[in-house]
Amino acid sequence: MKFGIFGGARVGRADTLHDSYGYRDFINYVIAAEKIGFEGIFLVEHHFTGQGQLSASLNLLSYLAARTTKIRLGTGVVVLPWHNPVLLAEQVATLDVLSGGRVDLGVGRGYRKAEFDAFCVPMSEAQERFAECFEVMLKAWASDERFTHSGKRWQYKDIMVEPAPVQRPHPPIWMAGGSPQGIAYIASQNYNLLLDQLASIEEVRERVASYLDGLEKIGKPRDATRVGIARSITIVRDEAERKKAMERRKDTFKRIGAIAYRKPGQAQPSHDDPDLANDDSALLGTPQEIVDRINVLAEAGAGYILLTMASISPESVQQFAEEILPHVKDVGPKFGASPAPQQVAA
Amino acid sequence: MKFGIFGGARVGRADTLHDSYGYRDFINYVIAAEKIGFEGIFLVEHHFTGQGQLSASLNLLSYLAARTTKIRLGTGVVVLPWHNPVLLAEQVATLDVLSGGRVDLGVGRGYRKAEFDAFCVPMSEAQERFAECFEVMLKAWASDERFTHSGKRWQYKDIMVEPAPVQRPHPPIWMAGGSPQGIAYIASQNYNLLLDQLASIEEVRERVASYLDGLEKIGKPRDATRVGIARSITIVRDEAERKKAMERRKDTFKRIGAIAYRKPGQAQPSHDDPDLANDDSALLGTPQEIVDRINVLAEAGAGYILLTMASISPESVQQFAEEILPHVKDVGPKFGASPAPQQVAA
Repeated sequence: MKFGIFGGARVGRADTLHDSYGYRDFINYVIAAEKIGFEGIFLVEHHFTGQGQLSASLNLLSYLAARTTKIRLGTGVVVLPWHNPVLLAEQVATLDVLSGGRVDLGVGRGYRKAEFDAFCVPMSEAQERFAECFEVMLKAWASDERFTHSGKRWQYKDIMVEPAPVQRPHPPIWMAGGSPQGIAYIASQNYNLLLDQLASIEEVRERVASYLDGLEKIGKPRDATRVGIARSITIVRDEAERKKAMERRKDTFKRIGAIAYRKPGQAQPSHDDPDLANDDSALLGTPQEIVDRINVLAEAGAGYILLTMASISPESVQQFAEEILPHVKDVGPKFGASPAPQQVAA
Repeated sequence: MKFGIFGGARVGRADTLHDSYGYRDFINYVIAAEKIGFEGIFLVEHHFTGQGQLSASLNLLSYLAARTTKIRLGTGVVVLPWHNPVLLAEQVATLDVLSGGRVDLGVGRGYRKAEFDAFCVPMSEAQERFAECFEVMLKAWASDERFTHSGKRWQYKDIMVEPAPVQRPHPPIWMAGGSPQGIAYIASQNYNLLLDQLASIEEVRERVASYLDGLEKIGKPRDATRVGIARSITIVRDEAERKKAMERRKDTFKRIGAIAYRKPGQAQPSHDDPDLANDDSALLGTPQEIVDRINVLAEAGAGYILLTMASISPESVQQFAEEILPHVKDVGPKFGASPAPQQVAA
C-alpha cells in the first residue's frame, strides 16, 4: 500500500501580500509527506474560481522539484483543452528534467461547466480538443525528428520539442476513469488510473479489478499501485468533532455535485446522498476507524491512496504518520523507499 | 552599477538521460551569481531550435525561486504571441508569489522568422497578437473584479485571475527597445528597458539618455538601473585565447544576424561587421581591458549590465567576482544588498 497527496494550495487575490501565504503551508505539507515516505502528490488545476484554487500547477511543481528529492510530482489533472499542446509538452518535459524524472502527468478534458463558459469553449468540444492536444503532446515528447501537425485547432510546421523528458518517451500518464468503457480504454493504453474521492468501496473494488484485467490483456503486470484512489481524511477525537466533520462532508458532496453538474435536468452524481447514510468513501473517524477503513480498501484491491487532509499542514502529516500508518496492513518494507519511475511504453 | 545574468540553460533531446544535465550547471551559475550580489537574471525563451534552447523559462524560474532568496527572476523575453494570455498571467503571478515578489517580466513580440513559421503564425500579426495578449494580462493582474474580454484572438467571460501577483498591480515590465520611438514608448508607459548585446557604447549612451528623458517626462526619477544592457563577457589570458574568442564573436554576429533576418532583400543588422573593427559591444579581453570597458559603459550612462558569460559555471562567476568586480567604479555600498522590488504604477 502506497500513500500520496491529492489537492492543491490556495492563494486568493487578497492573500498574496504576505510571503507565499497559502503556498508556503502547502509546500511544508508536501515536504513533510516526502519525509514520512509518501509516494507522490497530484495537484489540481482550476481557473477563475474566486476561491484561490491553484491555477498554474506546473509552476508550483517546478518549485517543489527543488525542495524535494524523492516524492513524485503529479497533476490531477491538467485540463488539456485550455492549453497550447506544444507549450504544455515543453513545460512538462522541463519539470521532468528539473525533478530528475519524477513527473506523474494526470490529464483530463475538464468537467466544470463554469470553466468552459469562462474560456468561451463549448463543453461539447471537450473531447475533441482533449484528443488533439494529447496527440500533439505525445508526438512532441517522442519525436527526435522534426514533425508537422495540421489539426483542427493547432498547426505546427517542422518542429522539434525541447527538452525531451527524462522519462522516455514521456512521464507516466494518469487519467480519471469511472465507467467500464473508460477504465478499459485507460488500461488498454497502458496509462495509470485515478479514481475519484466519492467512489464507494464497492466501486473501488470493481474499478480496480477491471483496470487490472485490462492491464493483463495487454500483457502488463496486475499492479494495483497504478490506481490512485482519492480519499479525504479527517481524524476526529470526539462526537462533536465527528458532527462537524460530517457537516463539512455533506457540503463537499453538494459542492462537487454542483460543480460537476452540467445541464439542467441532468442527473446529479449518484453519491449525492444528503444523509451520507451509505457513504463509505471518506476516511472520517477516530484513528482506529480510519485504519479499519484503509484495511478494507486494501482488501478491496487498493494499492495507492491519495489523501486530501482536512488541514494542509505538516502537523496533519505527522499525525497520520504516528496514528494511522503504523497500523495499516500491507505497508511492506518498501514503504519509504523511492521506487524506480514507472515507465510507460510508447 | 548593478550586474545581472542574461541567457538560458540548454538541454537538448539527447542530454536528459543524465540528471538535470544542462540545467544543473545553469542553476549553480545563478546561485553563485546571487552569492556575489548580482541583482537579477533574465532568461530567454526559444522554441524548436534543435539546439536545446530553454523553452519553458517560467518553470526554470519557479525552480530557481526555491533555490535562491534575493536575486530577481526575470524573462528576457517571453514571446507573447505564443501564449494564452490568461494562463501566462497565472504562471507569472504564481512565480511572483513563490518568489516573494522577485519577478522581472520581459515581454516581446518575437523576432525569429523560423519561430513564426513553426507556430504557423504570420510574422505580420506579431504586433497585434502581442498587443492583445498584453492587454489581457494587465487586466488579469489588476482586476479584483470579474471581467470579460472579447478580442480578435482570445475570448473570456466573467473571469477573475488567481493568484494575484505579490508585486501590485504586476511585476515590473521590461521591453527590448532600440529605435527612438520604441524607447520613448517604453518610458512613457513606465516600463523598464532592455538593450541588446550588439548595441555599441555610443548607442548605449544615446538610448539610455533618451529613456531617462522619457522617464523624466512622466515625472519619474532618472534611474539608470532600469535599463538592462546585455553584454557578452569573455576573459582572455593570452593572444591565442583572444583569437579564439574573436572567432566565436564573429560567429555570434553571423548567427544573430541570420536569426533576426526577416525577408530576402531586407537589410542585415547594422552590426554585421565581419571584421569586428568597430565592435565595442563585447566585454572581451584581459580583466583590465574588461574593467576599462565597463567603466566606459558606466560613464556612458549604464546602470545595469546583464552578462552572458562565455562559460556557464560557478567558476566563471567567481572569476568575475575576483578579477573584475573589485575594480569597477561606481559599485556603491549597495552592491550585494537586495533593493526593494521596483513597483510599476498601473
